[in-house]
Order: sequence, then C-alpha cells, then structure tokens
Amino acid sequence: MSLLRPLVRDLIHTLPDSKIREVSLFGEGREGLIPLWFGESDEQTPDFIKDAARRAMDEGATFYAPNAGVAPLRAEIQAYMTRLYNRPFDLERFVVTASGMNAIILTFQALVDPGDNVLVVTPVWPNCRETIAIMGGEARDVALQETDGRWHLDLDRLFDAADERTRAIFINSPGNPTGWMMPEDQRDAILAWARQRGIWIVADDVYARLVYDRPHAPAFVEVAEPDDRVIAINSFSKSWSMTGWRLGWITAPASLLTDLSKLNEYNIAGPTTFVQHAGAVALRDGDGYVNDLVERLRRRRDLVAQGLSQFSRVRVASPEAAFYAFFSVDGVTDSLALARRLVEEAGVGLAPGIAFGQQGEGYLRLCFASSEQALSTALDRMRPLLDG
Amino acid sequence: MSLLRPLVRDLIHTLPDSKIREVSLFGEGREGLIPLWFGESDEQTPDFIKDAARRAMDEGATFYAPNAGVAPLRAEIQAYMTRLYNRPFDLERFVVTASGMNAIILTFQALVDPGDNVLVVTPVWPNCRETIAIMGGEARDVALQETDGRWHLDLDRLFDAADERTRAIFINSPGNPTGWMMPEDQRDAILAWARQRGIWIVADDVYARLVYDRPHAPAFVEVAEPDDRVIAINSFSKSWSMTGWRLGWITAPASLLTDLSKLNEYNIAGPTTFVQHAGAVALRDGDGYVNDLVERLRRRRDLVAQGLSQFSRVRVASPEAAFYAFFSVDGVTDSLALARRLVEEAGVGLAPGIAFGQQGEGYLRLCFASSEQALSTALDRMRPLLDG
Repeated sequence: MSLLRPLVRDLIHTLPDSKIREVSLFGEGREGLIPLWFGESDEQTPDFIKDAARRAMDEGATFYAPNAGVAPLRAEIQAYMTRLYNRPFDLERFVVTASGMNAIILTFQALVDPGDNVLVVTPVWPNCRETIAIMGGEARDVALQETDGRWHLDLDRLFDAADERTRAIFINSPGNPTGWMMPEDQRDAILAWARQRGIWIVADDVYARLVYDRPHAPAFVEVAEPDDRVIAINSFSKSWSMTGWRLGWITAPASLLTDLSKLNEYNIAGPTTFVQHAGAVALRDGDGYVNDLVERLRRRRDLVAQGLSQFSRVRVASPEAAFYAFFSVDGVTDSLALARRLVEEAGVGLAPGIAFGQQGEGYLRLCFASSEQALSTALDRMRPLLDG
Repeated sequence: MSLLRPLVRDLIHTLPDSKIREVSLFGEGREGLIPLWFGESDEQTPDFIKDAARRAMDEGATFYAPNAGVAPLRAEIQAYMTRLYNRPFDLERFVVTASGMNAIILTFQALVDPGDNVLVVTPVWPNCRETIAIMGGEARDVALQETDGRWHLDLDRLFDAADERTRAIFINSPGNPTGWMMPEDQRDAILAWARQRGIWIVADDVYARLVYDRPHAPAFVEVAEPDDRVIAINSFSKSWSMTGWRLGWITAPASLLTDLSKLNEYNIAGPTTFVQHAGAVALRDGDGYVNDLVERLRRRRDLVAQGLSQFSRVRVASPEAAFYAFFSVDGVTDSLALARRLVEEAGVGLAPGIAFGQQGEGYLRLCFASSEQALSTALDRMRPLLDG
C-alpha cells in the first residue's frame, strides 16, 4: 500500500485541531466543571424565536428553500441593516448562510485561488485561517499590539504585509478573543487603501451588537459604497443566543448575488428552512432581547475584569466589546498546559491563548456570557493558580 | 479598474447555474402550475419527526454540538446501518453532515487536490461535478448507456477513463435522474479494481431505500472492508421527507473521523443541533414511514410510467428505484426549450435533461413524488406536446 496516495490530502490532514476543543475534550465529563471555553452564552435561545420555529414547522416550512434564502428572512435582514446603520441597503446585497462559519468558507471559495494570500489580523478566532488553507491560500498574520491589556492595530504593519497576491484582508472587529474594536479612522484608512488596490475586505461582524459604549461597532458596510469590495459576515449565534441554529448572512456587492447563491447551492443549498423563518422573527422582534443581553453582559464583564485584575499574575483590561476576557498570565509560556491545569485543579474551563495564533501564547480566554454566580465561583477557584 | 483582479475567481464565476433552477424561475408565480421539477416529495415531514424537533428545542438543544454530531444521532445511525445492511459498523465510521450536498463537498475537500480528477457516472445530479470544480479538480464524465429506457454501465469504459491523477469514482446508485441501480456484480468488480489502485469510491446512497423490488439497493458499504477507500453519502431528505432540514451523514473508514470532523468545524461546525436530535428519532422510529412512502411511490411510478409510455414521442421504462421518470422525447435536441414550453403551454414543471450533463440532452426528468391526482392532471396536460 506504500505506493498509494495518502487517504486524505496532506493539506487537510495537517490542519490543526482546535486547541479549544482539545481542552474541552480533556475536561469532558468532569463533575462541577464551569465551562467558559466556548464562545457561547449559557442562555437558551429565547422563547419567541423557538415559537417562530415551531410555527414555521406547523405551516409546512420543511421543503427546500431558495439558494439566497427565504424571502421573509432576506427582507428582515434588509430592514435590520437599514435600521442599524441608518442607510439604505439593496435586497440584492444579502445572501443567507448556514452560520457565520459557513459564510466565511463560502467567501473564501469565491475569492481565493491557490497561491493567494489573505491578511488576517490576529490574535483571532482560528477557523478563518483554516478556511483559507483549505482553498490553497495562505493566511498571513498581522499581529495586534497589546499595552496594559488594550489592543491596537499598527496600520503600517498591516499595509506592509500585502503583496501582489494579497486577495483580501480579514478583520474581526469587535474581535474574538481580544475584544479589540477597530476605530473609525482606521476603518476609513483601510477602506481607502484596499479600494485603491482592489483588495477585498472581509469583515467578520458577528459581535457588531455586543458593544458597551455605543449601539454598534464601527463597520465597513456603514461607510462603504455598495459596490466596494467589502463582504460583511454576520451570525445569529451571539446576539440572539442561537449558536446551535446555524444561521448567518453575507452582505456583499449586489454583483456577487448570483455567484454566492451558486456556492450556497453547491455547499449546503441553504440553512434549515424553518430556522430561516425563525431568524426573520429574531430580527423583527429581537431588538429588546439584544439590548437586555448587552446589559447582562456588561455586568458580567465588570465582575470578571475586576476579579481578574486583583490577581497578581494577571494583566487584563475591561474589553470594550464582545464577551471575552483575554488576559495574560505572568511567566506563562504554555497556555495549553495552564488551561489543562485550570481544568484539573480549579474545575474551570478556559480557552488557551495559543488557540488564537502564536500571538496568543501566554494568554487565556474566558467567555463571560455565563451567570454571575458561575463567574464568581470560577474566579474564586482560579485564585490559587493565578494570584501570588 | 481594469487592472484589478476580477471580483470573483474565474473558476467560480463560470460555474454553471442550475438549469433546473432556470426552468423553475421561469415558471415562478404561474397559477396552477404543477411543479415536478425538484427532487422533493410534496409531503410535509411526518409529525413524529417535527415533534422530536419541538421536544429537543424544549429541552434546550439550542447550543453548539460536537463536530462529528450529537451522540444520540450517531448511535442511531450506527444502529440503522447495522440493521439495514445486516453487518456491524463501528461508531467511529460516522460523521453527521448538514445534508447530502454538504457531505459531498466535505468529501471532495478532503480528497481533491488541484489537478486531480474524479470519474463521475452520468447522467447525474449535477452538483457533485461543481464541488469537484470548486476544489480545482476535474469531473470526468463516464456515460451510462440507455436501451429502451433502461440504463447500464460499461465497466471497461469506466476503467479506461482513469489515469494516474484519478482520485475517486463518484457513483450515485440508485441514480438521479436515471433510476439506474448498480448490480451487485458490477459493484464487486468496481470495488476490486478501485481497491487495487487506491482510488476512492464515493457512493451517493441517498436513494438507497427508495427501491421497488428489494429492501435496499446494492451498496459498497455492504461488502467493503471497514478500511477500504469507500465513502458513502447519506441524507434524510428523500426517505424521511426532510429536504428542508439539511441533515445527512458520511460513512467512511474510521481513520478519517478526525479529518472529517475538522472539516465540519471549518465549514459549518455541524447541522442545527435540535435537527440532529430529530434525525435520531427519524431513524429510530421511521422504518414504517419509509416503507409506506415506498408503497405510495410505487403506485405513482406505475401511473407515470404507464401514462408516459402511451405518448407516441416518448421512450421510457419503469424505473427500478428513486422517484424520477427520465424519458427521451423523439426529435428533441433542446430539452431546456421543451421544459419551458411545458411550463408555458401545459402548466407542468419538469427538469430538462441537459441539467444532468451532455448525456441528458433530449430527455426530461419528472419527479413522481406527488399526489396521484396531480400526476394524472400533469399527464393529461402534457399529452398535446408529447403525443403525436
């Protein structure tokens, strides 16, 4: 058998496993463990969204849907985006996807030829980098810099990383895991630079609403022309607590509608039909839920940031956005080992910083979308390992 | 802007649109039209499956699921496959996917490097060919031959089409659109030949249960060793009337579990969580439903085959499997034009044969998974165009 080709492409076989999954598998089944490792709220999806799914099933929405998404959902996406960003959007700019994750791989299927590269602002949720690799492209890291727990992007460093094979820039702002939020002047400078070079901006906006000092984060789609090379990724997972539903959308130039719809057809032919109808109701009736969620998260953020800052070995700042505390621990060079120790000795599940790229080594990520009681207990339990 | 690279990869931009979608868009909104163009039953998903989804939502299955699928569903897949094929299957051989379509692109992401080719037995549902193209591979057609409406595969023709870059053979049996069912001796010969060369067999088994003269179609997984290079694609869409739910599974050698799970993570991170729990119930309690569905389809098949055979210009045979009549019409060289005429002049929506590859030109596909009344009316309406 030695002359046969390998079972699976080398490129796929050598893709890294998720280091977050590695820790969570290590902690699987441990009684009383407080899991704060995934990017997921501990709240079930609200009832008004579940009810909408039940109604849609009752009404027979169990058949195939159009490739760009069912009409009521696309109309609600249009209304939502128009309302949020206070500017009109054409309906032809929206394609429904089976999650933000799915939107990202569809986007890179559309853009990345083998040998292309994509600049990725890191530390970042790792999956976007793997989708670029699957398509034969190169994910080229551009590191954010941290000062006293605050993150910022050096634009020169970003621009210098580009070459003639740079096809896109991937920016997740507000960012997972850092909570970094791209300021408006940087957004405008990146847009002008990318526009001149015909480089795509792929903006992962899934935390756009989880912001603590304004209604939404600065977004490229807020200022770009409709035909600018800007693709925005959105998801129902975080703001509407719908992680398990697998629903998201792409905002793109209208000229991409046909190609993105084809890619939907050839990847999954669209998300679950009655889930799409539930998504329409989430957008239509969900503003109150999202606002309340942000208030709950704000209290949890304060509790966690304050608690962690009292640990002598921890350097942390209160994040402006998203629902993570991403903090460094003095003297730590193996965040995976520390995450395992926290599971074993403290019964707390965190994500190791190395999961988010080399720049994340020495850090840990704590998702604070859990009850205040769980968070307080987790802080108490971690103290022996992180303080003194 | 002329020096800029094109918006979308040329390879994606030039992917064909679905010709089935083209006809269905042409017919959209026509009052009284009888749509028999999609591969979809006109029956809603049965209540026991809807109820299972409702229960899973009630019980809070709205969170992320493991990449290989939720445990109860994987256990039911194992039990189902063991029962159906009367042989044991290890649990590690199963990965849950968001539809058969999604299973196919995950498979080709795992297998196809740019420049590889995949032999595809045609006429066939076109989407498998596009997924190969998206990954930079070549779909190489191997045509079935038709005699008096019956289709058969010439094995020499199949084997001769392979070269050193042949990575896999894609076989959809029972076949859409032809209803062709691979005989057991051909299955065994293909398996022996592929095994010797290390060529993968990708078996699209989504119609495995819709067979009219035996409990299931001959399948590679029924006779292959667990570590043979065989991947079987399955779907809940056809046998459990769950097209809109987007749920399927892959059966593969256990050694692929990790890589396929990673690809799930990086494509969609798994289908909707409560949909997975409903799928477990569909498999556990659904044998009666599937058997009844096959009986209903058998009557419809007989009605349609008999009706069509009375049209002087039509050549058709009663299919042994699946739920399509795929018939040629004397003198027709443009099946898309004929499908449009049938929409306009007869109010009947069929799929044009050209949608399934060059070998399909001159044919039409009628999905007979509709009520006998609708089918009778459709036959009456088509008579003026297809008879005399």
